[in-house]
Amino acid sequence: MARIVMKFGGTSMAGTERIRRVANIVRKQQAAGHEVAVVVSAMAGETDRLVNFCREANPLYDPAEYDVVVASGEQVTSGLLALTLQAMGCKARSWLGWQVPIRTVEAHAKARVEAIEADAMIAAMAGGEIAVVPGFQGISADGRVTTLGRGGSDTSAVAVAAALGADRCDIYTDVDGVYTTDPRIVARARKLKAVTYEEMLELASVGAKVLQTRSVGLAMKEGVRVQVLSSFVDDDATPADELPGTMIVSEEEMEQLLKDGEMERQLVTGIAHDKNEAKVILTRVPDKPGAVANIFGPLAQASINVDMIIQNVGRDKGETDVTFTVPQADLARAQALLEDRRGEIGFNRIITDSKVAKISVVGVGMKSHAGVASTMFKALADRGINIQAITTSEIKVSVLIDEDETELAVRVLHSAYGLDADDEAA
Amino acid sequence: MARIVMKFGGTSMAGTERIRRVANIVRKQQAAGHEVAVVVSAMAGETDRLVNFCREANPLYDPAEYDVVVASGEQVTSGLLALTLQAMGCKARSWLGWQVPIRTVEAHAKARVEAIEADAMIAAMAGGEIAVVPGFQGISADGRVTTLGRGGSDTSAVAVAAALGADRCDIYTDVDGVYTTDPRIVARARKLKAVTYEEMLELASVGAKVLQTRSVGLAMKEGVRVQVLSSFVDDDATPADELPGTMIVSEEEMEQLLKDGEMERQLVTGIAHDKNEAKVILTRVPDKPGAVANIFGPLAQASINVDMIIQNVGRDKGETDVTFTVPQADLARAQALLEDRRGEIGFNRIITDSKVAKISVVGVGMKSHAGVASTMFKALADRGINIQAITTSEIKVSVLIDEDETELAVRVLHSAYGLDADDEAA
Repeated sequence: MARIVMKFGGTSMAGTERIRRVANIVRKQQAAGHEVAVVVSAMAGETDRLVNFCREANPLYDPAEYDVVVASGEQVTSGLLALTLQAMGCKARSWLGWQVPIRTVEAHAKARVEAIEADAMIAAMAGGEIAVVPGFQGISADGRVTTLGRGGSDTSAVAVAAALGADRCDIYTDVDGVYTTDPRIVARARKLKAVTYEEMLELASVGAKVLQTRSVGLAMKEGVRVQVLSSFVDDDATPADELPGTMIVSEEEMEQLLKDGEMERQLVTGIAHDKNEAKVILTRVPDKPGAVANIFGPLAQASINVDMIIQNVGRDKGETDVTFTVPQADLARAQALLEDRRGEIGFNRIITDSKVAKISVVGVGMKSHAGVASTMFKALADRGINIQAITTSEIKVSVLIDEDETELAVRVLHSAYGLDADDEAA
Repeated sequence: MARIVMKFGGTSMAGTERIRRVANIVRKQQAAGHEVAVVVSAMAGETDRLVNFCREANPLYDPAEYDVVVASGEQVTSGLLALTLQAMGCKARSWLGWQVPIRTVEAHAKARVEAIEADAMIAAMAGGEIAVVPGFQGISADGRVTTLGRGGSDTSAVAVAAALGADRCDIYTDVDGVYTTDPRIVARARKLKAVTYEEMLELASVGAKVLQTRSVGLAMKEGVRVQVLSSFVDDDATPADELPGTMIVSEEEMEQLLKDGEMERQLVTGIAHDKNEAKVILTRVPDKPGAVANIFGPLAQASINVDMIIQNVGRDKGETDVTFTVPQADLARAQALLEDRRGEIGFNRIITDSKVAKISVVGVGMKSHAGVASTMFKALADRGINIQAITTSEIKVSVLIDEDETELAVRVLHSAYGLDADDEAA
């Protein structure tokens, strides 16, 4: 017997017919002997509807009242799932954020879970009752409704799993797992049986939109084993314990899976791409101490996230070009901010380019192996793809290229690292 | 300065544009120097939508989870009204049932308010903050969401007014007050400036669907002064304290209004009609002790509300016909129940008739005046309207007639008691 948290997103909860499907998946897990808590999103489209009401009522809305309005979407689906489970003969009840309680900081509309006092819920679950928890919502110290920000239900699920000491947190989405790359680009992409938290963070933050990044960070911190799988594959022939998703685990557990032969050791786990970056070049910046601080200090203060940075030394003596990337959404703001400080920084021109893409090669395997980066550079060069910037971390190499070459680069690299499905079969 | 509770129904809250209108009415009361709490219904149609979801999820739904789902409708409108008031520069916040808290018994989906601990809300109101309370909802002793049953928001408003010791509870509806009779039948019906709780109970329970009957009973018990008025007349020229609605008050206050010349003393306050009754005749029931108990005991046990009863003595020796009325919705059930006990009761035939209407003449004035009933009988007889049954109470005389004569009877009686608008002007 295990204790399991299951989380279903808005597409899975959109209407009573789909909720019945979800209830059926939940029921199977309970029938397999597990204690089950379910975390649910609002019906697809409902949160948007409620957010629009708030905007119409008050464009500069008070986040405390916004939270009262938008939290209602998950309240509805939690009650409906409990009702549907009861109709199937299961014991079930909803536990609203203030009932559990799920205590958060007071930052309305972007709260963070501080503590979940789950004793009453654990006791009810021990009595065979399925606990249904609306995602996204909590209660502040002063007794007001809070929400965790858009997409916060993944985080709710992981936080509930941590509080329950759950054996697993299953996140059901509209994809059936984490792939070696985007299957819409590479038809031969393979579903991964497992990835580490660190890999998932790199894959998520560079564009694999399977899980909310914050939820992966929390899972890593709390040691919650997360599984990503699809709610649209409810194969009754599949035993409840052989779910064909992707497990997100610690490096230690990954090491064990490799030893046990459950996973094949790979240098590279996946290839991610991200078209939401923009490139900024400041030309002829004085090449002197403090110059770079003059550029990036103000950007950091304005909460503009600078990713890749290159400094091209010495075209003219005593001057340098500084290149970096920022999110496209922040480009205009960054540009205005730098123009304001032109005198202070002392650059000649600002050149910007939104038509860029960041391609990343991710894998814990590269920690202990050299040559991963050079394989990447050679493979891209062989196809004439020009690299505009490079960043690396312990488990990732990212390059910036022309946006038009995104798909080509992903396919080239997927092959270069032997990730294509056929390669494995061979 | 007064403390006022204002209540707005679903039609008034249907959409952000209408909520803005409501906020404007509320703002005016605060600007007039009053402390204001507002009780709101869900948007028109929303509760039906949520109830349907529950029925689809589980036809035999658990009322505890039903309450979780349906209470969300008022949660949304309370947050939106608070946001809208803030947009107009007012201080405002929502107080959900569990936040006030509004404590109710555990009877889910038909809870009754037990106690409202309004100290925190009163303190916030004293600080100039408008309190917005979702109607219809409360919290049970075990911390679950409860609802008061359909139309319960009127009752919420009166209960909140009692807890706040409010000077007045203004119920805004889609009619602008209580009339001497249905204005769709009698064009010369007059809006009443005031009625007593007792009169309102009689008028409401016999068909004047302005206020939920239960809320009037609670107002009478708690001594809450209720005013019925329209949210669709927001005449900016009308001072906030001269609202053109109908006050529902105690007999003492009514006596004072009559003394002060604010009201004209009338024998009859209003004429009500009700087409939802059905007539049942049991023929040739043995005329002996216990016979009547054999009929009405089982009906009472089945919660079938018998209204008018007539016993026509002695057509044949030792036998009698018993006539009574039940709500049309219960007619089939009553008939089946009586057929089952035919032997015990010993009647010959059951004759039923749904084509009947009950016409009632209501007024505290008739307590001290004889002749009200005879005026009624004469006026109806003069127009050839046959009376099938009669019941009376201290402040009411009701007769049962052919349904086709409903409008005629109402018009005849409205004139007979001098209620037509022209009569007053004369």
